[in-house]
Amino acid sequence: MKSILLIGQSNMAGRGFIEDVPLIHHENIHMLRNGRWQMMAEPIHFDREIAGIGPAASFALEWVKAHSGESLGLIPCAEGGSAMDEWAPDSVLTRHALNEAKFAMESSELIGILWHQGENDSLNQLYKTYAAKLKTLFDHLRKELDAQEIPIIIGGLGDFLGKSGFGASAVEHGEINQLLQQTAEQEDNCYFVTAQNLTANPDGIHLDAVSQRKFGLRYYQAFSQEKSVFEPLSEEDNRLEQLKTEPTAAIRMYLLTKEFALGKLTEEEFFTIYSEIMQGN
Amino acid sequence: MKSILLIGQSNMAGRGFIEDVPLIHHENIHMLRNGRWQMMAEPIHFDREIAGIGPAASFALEWVKAHSGESLGLIPCAEGGSAMDEWAPDSVLTRHALNEAKFAMESSELIGILWHQGENDSLNQLYKTYAAKLKTLFDHLRKELDAQEIPIIIGGLGDFLGKSGFGASAVEHGEINQLLQQTAEQEDNCYFVTAQNLTANPDGIHLDAVSQRKFGLRYYQAFSQEKSVFEPLSEEDNRLEQLKTEPTAAIRMYLLTKEFALGKLTEEEFFTIYSEIMQGN
Repeated sequence: MKSILLIGQSNMAGRGFIEDVPLIHHENIHMLRNGRWQMMAEPIHFDREIAGIGPAASFALEWVKAHSGESLGLIPCAEGGSAMDEWAPDSVLTRHALNEAKFAMESSELIGILWHQGENDSLNQLYKTYAAKLKTLFDHLRKELDAQEIPIIIGGLGDFLGKSGFGASAVEHGEINQLLQQTAEQEDNCYFVTAQNLTANPDGIHLDAVSQRKFGLRYYQAFSQEKSVFEPLSEEDNRLEQLKTEPTAAIRMYLLTKEFALGKLTEEEFFTIYSEIMQGN
Repeated sequence: MKSILLIGQSNMAGRGFIEDVPLIHHENIHMLRNGRWQMMAEPIHFDREIAGIGPAASFALEWVKAHSGESLGLIPCAEGGSAMDEWAPDSVLTRHALNEAKFAMESSELIGILWHQGENDSLNQLYKTYAAKLKTLFDHLRKELDAQEIPIIIGGLGDFLGKSGFGASAVEHGEINQLLQQTAEQEDNCYFVTAQNLTANPDGIHLDAVSQRKFGLRYYQAFSQEKSVFEPLSEEDNRLEQLKTEPTAAIRMYLLTKEFALGKLTEEEFFTIYSEIMQGN
């Protein structure tokens, strides 16, 4: 099993509305819970009750499709509303994320880190010290996880910031975006991914579900090509369509069990469908 | 801040349907996320996407009502479907729960542990070795957390087990229940709480939401009286009614923000209600 650490603030945790996109299920995509792996089910993060669609699921689906028979595990450690200062090496968030990654690494090889953060630092000239703090964090993570060579992918901030709702105060997102891009240029094994053309929820700060799916494709493009992505990919809508898969028997069994556990099927209905799946229907 | 560690399997994690009971919100009840505290919102656990109502929220509400001005933090570490063997001292679940508890204890005093587990051990004569394993776990937790004196509350298994759905295989729940009770008698600072009269979801294994609320009251009774609870409490329905509180301004603001983040309000509606709350209306 390979694994990916997810860190940053709410747009890495994911706030896309879960009812807006088909959910992604794949037997080879897992997520960390209580230090162990289980099959991924969205939302991957649980930092807030409003956690929803983030970039990691479509990233992971691209990965497993390109690595037939291999498994990928996602390590959810992003925290909504967290500022760069809350990701200092000795902060709780950083220490906790390292702990989670180490549990994951008992049974997987860490192959990458996805970072998305900066909305909380897009005001009051916080950009002046942002890049140094980000570099300190990355150096610390690489050292503590013995991961000098793995790619770190940095997602850019949305163009929609600084305008309305909870995004209104992020007036210096342009400055932060530049620093994110510069950091990717200056650091080894570090790549930038643009958020250009992605759109927000009505709250003006959180990427919507479809945008998060596209963002995941961009993150994967940068990861797999080892190269920054400065423009939206061509035909992103088509690519998302092509990612869709027919559920396998194991996925159908998972979903059936969930429906029964949620009281949406009688025991008789459950066993009828169960038998059908077992018989390959 | 005081804190409580929650461990065991799915009925501690909670599978009561979230739409079946009024959700509990209280400014002084918190839960651990990414190693830090935030205000509790149900589901407290996130071990599975079907996590719902467990016993901890009504337990916590009783506690904060009895400790005016003090705060309680919940540490969710239960894992659905986990067997007693998966709670051995060197297992991932135990090591991870200890880690979470230690993060919590950086900013709180651990005052109790709530345990509910046994459905997965209610077959194949696993009861023969259950009590020794449970005692080993408790000794280990007390030592590692430097918590010799704090109460450990053990919840009993439901009478409904061994009959239908996912509960059908738990045919030896009577034997396990006896051992849970015996363990509470034999260990210092350890109390048993009956699940008598509590009812299950249609899946035949998971306590329903109202039962979980009642179970939480029983857990709190044992915790506060330092005495096992062998019978249902008197007037449990009334007690649940009395627990209900009018939301404070801070809770209303939390819920308003959630609605806006979920796209259920326009920005104008958000700010109108925001102003009303700020003006004390």
